[in-house]
Amino acid sequence: MKENYIAMAVIRRLPTYYRFLGRLMEQGVERISSKELSEQLQMTASQIRQDLNHFGGFGQQGYGYNVKNLYQEIGKILGVEESHNMIIVGAGNLGQALANYSSFAKRNFHVIGIFDVNPKLFGMTIRGVSIQDIDCLQQFLTEHTVDVAALTVPWHAAPELAADLVKWGAKSIWNFAPVDLKLPPDVLVENVQLLDSLMRLSYSLHERSLEEEA
Amino acid sequence: MKENYIAMAVIRRLPTYYRFLGRLMEQGVERISSKELSEQLQMTASQIRQDLNHFGGFGQQGYGYNVKNLYQEIGKILGVEESHNMIIVGAGNLGQALANYSSFAKRNFHVIGIFDVNPKLFGMTIRGVSIQDIDCLQQFLTEHTVDVAALTVPWHAAPELAADLVKWGAKSIWNFAPVDLKLPPDVLVENVQLLDSLMRLSYSLHERSLEEEA
Repeated sequence: MKENYIAMAVIRRLPTYYRFLGRLMEQGVERISSKELSEQLQMTASQIRQDLNHFGGFGQQGYGYNVKNLYQEIGKILGVEESHNMIIVGAGNLGQALANYSSFAKRNFHVIGIFDVNPKLFGMTIRGVSIQDIDCLQQFLTEHTVDVAALTVPWHAAPELAADLVKWGAKSIWNFAPVDLKLPPDVLVENVQLLDSLMRLSYSLHERSLEEEA
Repeated sequence: MKENYIAMAVIRRLPTYYRFLGRLMEQGVERISSKELSEQLQMTASQIRQDLNHFGGFGQQGYGYNVKNLYQEIGKILGVEESHNMIIVGAGNLGQALANYSSFAKRNFHVIGIFDVNPKLFGMTIRGVSIQDIDCLQQFLTEHTVDVAALTVPWHAAPELAADLVKWGAKSIWNFAPVDLKLPPDVLVENVQLLDSLMRLSYSLHERSLEEEA
């Protein structure tokens, strides 16, 4: 076990803290107590103190947390100060939306390539990056460091493509295809399953309508 | 406690089962054992049996699960057989991508309205639905049942708009804005935080590079 080991559950909450502290900074807020954080983030103050203690605990009794310090420290842990290269594989609606999303660049994720199978899209440019033939992927990956490959292709194409991307050197897969990728356990994958998210809403709506009938 | 209470952790896995069983049906597979499911879904067979026991347990010793029965039963629990009305609030890149995403309709989620503040977009049509002035939202919600309001607006506009949507009758919020909405606890909200997802990848990439240096 590493000395600085932080539980995955804490890691999953770090972006929320980071996002919120960034907003506070924009508003000129210099310090905040765990109590105020707790009210704003709808978590308990003790949970917040426990989470933030993991990385040095900048909170001071009667002062609270220094917003800027905490923001920078969490940013370091999240690695957001480093620049990351991203490619988008699949330039359908979702792929194009991601390519157009300026907030990624603000977080230091830079789209350096967009790929599709549809020849009609080749040469079309999104925010200065032109869409290329997916057959050029292997070559592209030998010439560029790719930290994140966003996979926005139909589900049946995703598993093979993901395996190829990893084989050719992509460091991680950001998977939007509605399928569970089977990749070696050491491959970094983050899934965004829009349909699953929608089905959870559907479940809750259904449950509620049953309750109302009862 | 309800008789048919199912833990939220199980519910969160149901879409995965549902999706996978749908694929099996398309391939003409009629039955499957928990062992095979376990290999395909990378979960333990005992976890799968435990999950599926929650709703009747259709598995039979030496036969396994009837794929179609299980698919239909999970579909009922998820409420996906019911038709849901969805509106999209914010017709930027992400909003337009969602409006264009045909898979939602396959899951019985039908986009019946798209709204934005930008007059240049008014009247533009996506899959037969024209983009309207966001000022028409309140009127629209009095005239239509809206099961899901997808919120794809900038973060600073999201909290107030979400509160209004709920007040005006939207049954649930599918939030894509990078902000934690503060809504009454009985409001159904499902968050899709793309930047948080990306930051978790960033964290893992950073951790790995530190390990490699060590």
